[in-house]
Amino acid sequence: MSSFVMSQSVEVQELGGGVSRRVLAHDEKIMMVEVAFETGAEGAPHRHVHEQLCYVLEGRFEFTIGEETQVVDQGDSMHFSSNVLHGTRCLEAGRLLDVFTPCRQDFLP
Amino acid sequence: MSSFVMSQSVEVQELGGGVSRRVLAHDEKIMMVEVAFETGAEGAPHRHVHEQLCYVLEGRFEFTIGEETQVVDQGDSMHFSSNVLHGTRCLEAGRLLDVFTPCRQDFLP
Repeated sequence: MSSFVMSQSVEVQELGGGVSRRVLAHDEKIMMVEVAFETGAEGAPHRHVHEQLCYVLEGRFEFTIGEETQVVDQGDSMHFSSNVLHGTRCLEAGRLLDVFTPCRQDFLP
Repeated sequence: MSSFVMSQSVEVQELGGGVSRRVLAHDEKIMMVEVAFETGAEGAPHRHVHEQLCYVLEGRFEFTIGEETQVVDQGDSMHFSSNVLHGTRCLEAGRLLDVFTPCRQDFLP
């Protein structure tokens, strides 16, 4: 992979239910992914071995991480430990920037 | 650290030369940092053992990674391998989202 990943060159993966994903810069150890949500779309509660950070690029989301639920806006960020259950509901259409370590190989073609 | 890091609770670290930093969600393995640049401000070429991703939140930047130089805008992303020389010059005031693995302990109090 090149060191530079230009936004307009990135393929949009439609995931259904008002959610789409764009895989950005990554290598084996670390991966950055932009995820767009329509209002009301959900990221059903799930868990994975990958450690994750998440940054709210725009919009408004209700997130549950383990036992804690909060509403987050542009600029708020989150940390999900390995195998912690987490999920979200989009309150106002927007985009999240997810970061995983190691890379989510299941997101690659 | 809590799983949620609300933007308004994050301290701004003034670095001088028109650059400031806000450390967002992180743990020992992975760290997210927002860096604001005034027009003309520079991130002098440097290298570190930490692997890094970078996402352009807003503004326009000229980046050099190793031997390659490109101008990047909102939504473009970059990957810096461990110990690769990289630097930037801000062409239009903006903000970058840097992600490091492992955590930049030198950015913590």
